[in-house]
Amino acid sequence: MSGYKVAVMGATGLVGRMMLKILEERNIPIKELILLATERSAGSYVEFEGERLMVETTRPDSFQGCDFALFSAGTSASKTMAPEAVKRGCIVIDNSNAWRMEEDVPLVVPEVNPEELSNHRGIIANPNCSTIQMVVALKPIKDSFGLKRVIVSTYQAVSGTGWKAVEELKLQSRQILQGKEIEPVVYPYQIAFNLLPHIDVFYNGFSKEELKMVNETKKIMKDPGLKITATTVRVPVISGHSESVYLETEKEVELSAIRQVLSTASGIVLYDDLDKLRYPMPVMVEESDLVWVGRIRKDLDEEKAFHLWVVANNLRKGAATNAVQIAEEIIQRGLL
Amino acid sequence: MSGYKVAVMGATGLVGRMMLKILEERNIPIKELILLATERSAGSYVEFEGERLMVETTRPDSFQGCDFALFSAGTSASKTMAPEAVKRGCIVIDNSNAWRMEEDVPLVVPEVNPEELSNHRGIIANPNCSTIQMVVALKPIKDSFGLKRVIVSTYQAVSGTGWKAVEELKLQSRQILQGKEIEPVVYPYQIAFNLLPHIDVFYNGFSKEELKMVNETKKIMKDPGLKITATTVRVPVISGHSESVYLETEKEVELSAIRQVLSTASGIVLYDDLDKLRYPMPVMVEESDLVWVGRIRKDLDEEKAFHLWVVANNLRKGAATNAVQIAEEIIQRGLL
Repeated sequence: MSGYKVAVMGATGLVGRMMLKILEERNIPIKELILLATERSAGSYVEFEGERLMVETTRPDSFQGCDFALFSAGTSASKTMAPEAVKRGCIVIDNSNAWRMEEDVPLVVPEVNPEELSNHRGIIANPNCSTIQMVVALKPIKDSFGLKRVIVSTYQAVSGTGWKAVEELKLQSRQILQGKEIEPVVYPYQIAFNLLPHIDVFYNGFSKEELKMVNETKKIMKDPGLKITATTVRVPVISGHSESVYLETEKEVELSAIRQVLSTASGIVLYDDLDKLRYPMPVMVEESDLVWVGRIRKDLDEEKAFHLWVVANNLRKGAATNAVQIAEEIIQRGLL
Repeated sequence: MSGYKVAVMGATGLVGRMMLKILEERNIPIKELILLATERSAGSYVEFEGERLMVETTRPDSFQGCDFALFSAGTSASKTMAPEAVKRGCIVIDNSNAWRMEEDVPLVVPEVNPEELSNHRGIIANPNCSTIQMVVALKPIKDSFGLKRVIVSTYQAVSGTGWKAVEELKLQSRQILQGKEIEPVVYPYQIAFNLLPHIDVFYNGFSKEELKMVNETKKIMKDPGLKITATTVRVPVISGHSESVYLETEKEVELSAIRQVLSTASGIVLYDDLDKLRYPMPVMVEESDLVWVGRIRKDLDEEKAFHLWVVANNLRKGAATNAVQIAEEIIQRGLL
């Protein structure tokens, strides 16, 4: 059987399972699939294309003979295991924060900077979910009209935190509807019918999520001088991140030209017809790998300034789909 | 018995009931309270200070002898009835959109522009909920350092739409948790575990809610040249509006000075200590009449630019409390 030997590390997590689903949906030929997780999850079974596959404990030798390893097992596992996989000739596509800002690690969104893949030295980093969907929307604008500045406020779903957070949102919602007391475990405060302007840890007034959006966007766009500030907020939505994006272009440009560019750009659905109440929403992107853009309008005061509303499935395009697309791009470019 | 004769129109609605609660909590001496609503709600009973009061159908003569009428019955009822009440010597404090932008109607937030009350000609407009909490936070900054520009993205609770919206959020949440189909009635799409970048109707790419925030803020701040653009979003939160606010000052100013000014300003709680995970959230403002401000930080790129996270109870400070405070201010200033 021809095809690739692929390992998925963190195969029992929300993103890991989505990676398997995306591998089923798309067309990378797979001759062997290795499912890896921590010792705690090892021995459990996960389905792939109708077959039950046993999850194994991740060990350095697990990657022997693998072409690709898709990692979604957190930063510290990635720090330890990615070099081991690379040593064994495996290309690692890593969804954690471990390698994203390393100078010699490409941070890639295939619609935006696929050319960076040719510089890879074994590890390719998958950007943060909230970054990916934003740069997909911004790139065609930058290419056509230049991009000077971005201010973004996010509305991020709990699935970005993982299984336990999804369960916590559901449990708390149920308890509150029944008039019961709730007890936050995953988040520091109630998440059901509430929201938290707090994603990841805080440094100097910013959350790490906010700084990820800033730094990753500059790296992906290859524009260290880009002005960008973010406010990231967790909302009681199960899946699908939304973003209110303000941007300034370099050149003078009509609203219609922005629309035109977005309507033909790769990976984007322009969904913006207010007469028909068409605007992107999290529930719409459940099965979508695309970035949905709507509510496009000119700023009321500044020339060369616009607002967008950007929605994508944070587990698909924001994580698993982007990782699998990176593998596809590597194959297509003969970079294996 | 000394005191004022007060009418509450729209007494059975969410804001109307909150007005009664606020009247109970605060200290306007009331000698007679008239509860008014549409014919459909007339005949029902509402409690006030332990007494059951019957709700009557609103008629022009209902306002005879009233000192104040607090209106929260929608724009068209307000258009018809406010002039009738004024004709009968009653001061109308109106929570609808009917009069806000009329030149000879003061649009008042007592912490911001109480002096406008002296120009009243019978009707005083209560601003939109999302405007009120933002201007309370911006005013002390404007007074001390000047204000050039605002970009705001909102996270607005369903109670802003009324009873039926709160019931719809709860019903849909229950149905989704039970794996049942939902059927949107109040909102055009699912609101539970979802969000809609759509509040009120759309004009030229903007929602009316967004334009209200823009136009009302300029009027309240007496600054038609203020640069301000808004994106307003409905989120699955029962009560409490949140806002991600970007602002530019006229003068150079240190972050510490912004904090200092906010910490002593009227009507504001500065709640911003990230080491202790202190930041405002909707669940915190359930019983609060104040505007909570946190996540204060300098923009990463622009000098003289800052970000705030502003949360308030949309039924209290965003509606009922502000209306009752206007009445208190009128009494205090001898403007009756």
